[in-house]
Amino acid sequence: MKTIVAATKNKHKIVEIEAITSQFGMNIVPRDEAGVPDIEIPETGKTFEENSYIKAHEIMKLSGQITIADDSGLVVDCIEGAPGVYSARFATFPGIWPDEKDEDEADSDDRDNNSKLIRLIKDVPYEQRTAHFVSVITMVFPDGETLVARGEVHGHLVLEERGKGGFGYDPLFVPLGYDRTFGELPAELKNSISHRANALVSLKEKLEKLNID
Amino acid sequence: MKTIVAATKNKHKIVEIEAITSQFGMNIVPRDEAGVPDIEIPETGKTFEENSYIKAHEIMKLSGQITIADDSGLVVDCIEGAPGVYSARFATFPGIWPDEKDEDEADSDDRDNNSKLIRLIKDVPYEQRTAHFVSVITMVFPDGETLVARGEVHGHLVLEERGKGGFGYDPLFVPLGYDRTFGELPAELKNSISHRANALVSLKEKLEKLNID
Repeated sequence: MKTIVAATKNKHKIVEIEAITSQFGMNIVPRDEAGVPDIEIPETGKTFEENSYIKAHEIMKLSGQITIADDSGLVVDCIEGAPGVYSARFATFPGIWPDEKDEDEADSDDRDNNSKLIRLIKDVPYEQRTAHFVSVITMVFPDGETLVARGEVHGHLVLEERGKGGFGYDPLFVPLGYDRTFGELPAELKNSISHRANALVSLKEKLEKLNID
Repeated sequence: MKTIVAATKNKHKIVEIEAITSQFGMNIVPRDEAGVPDIEIPETGKTFEENSYIKAHEIMKLSGQITIADDSGLVVDCIEGAPGVYSARFATFPGIWPDEKDEDEADSDDRDNNSKLIRLIKDVPYEQRTAHFVSVITMVFPDGETLVARGEVHGHLVLEERGKGGFGYDPLFVPLGYDRTFGELPAELKNSISHRANALVSLKEKLEKLNID
């Protein structure tokens, strides 16, 4: 496998993608190290697939190299699937489940996003606080060939942050079969069962089937 | 395999694509029958891959269904690879190998294109009149997954049109190992050795490897 440019600027995502793909023998290079200018790619899509696609293609056009993008988020059942594709900007995005603190800005920080989520679901009983993380990984080749792989991990939400591992909504999410949050579980464990791990394994299988290495 | 929308409006291409893919069990639907508006997709790319990609993606966005596009052309060695991606508009495209008859218009007709090609290569000896057809087939799925397959067929050019089969430059092209042109060979034979056939077989192999059916 040649060098693969990561379209994300999110350091946490890059660390996880590298931890998982290094086991596949892939060599991931952050976009800034691949000479891609520091521009924002607007995430205008309504689905993870669409945003993942947009990011991968825009960065491939700028880098000229095989590029991988991750679009991911948390889908919470009792609030109609929010925050979904708006996960990174939940606390500042007034479009869904508006909150008195919302301002229409860029990505909000993890603490504000988690606080907003807790406020919205605090009266919902545990059994109904089901949620799943989604990751859609898109790999684009310079000739336009594009592989898309989706991964999910299902679980429940707790009402106070637990653990310092992971990022985003991880301290609130308890995966099925475990009693600790993604914030509490060791990184190696999260990276073997997470939505992102499932998506990357599925991508790897597609690459192997196509004999791309 | 579900129904696949063909992005091309070229009836000759559709007939060939259907003849080949029907053996794979694919069901091809012309774009107008899939409710796609009759718009022109500008072929602004510099490569077959790029143009094939643009057509497949634009028509997929309009149809919402799995879409297949073919970008193809003739690459003639002694004139630096012309007409290449300009094959369909060679006689009206003043950008390469300008000719007194060129006007900057849409696609030119087969007779004018063949005449221009003959004028350009008429003093080149047969052994040096080598050429190859290229077809790049792009298949796009609604989630953005995109498969790209290239097929080629190599041969020589003759200096007068022979045969009424095929279309485009076929009456001038003698594939390696044969002594008749694509215009003279039976359609079944052309459709088993052509650039388009090779690309579609390669696409079929990719689909099978990914277990898409």
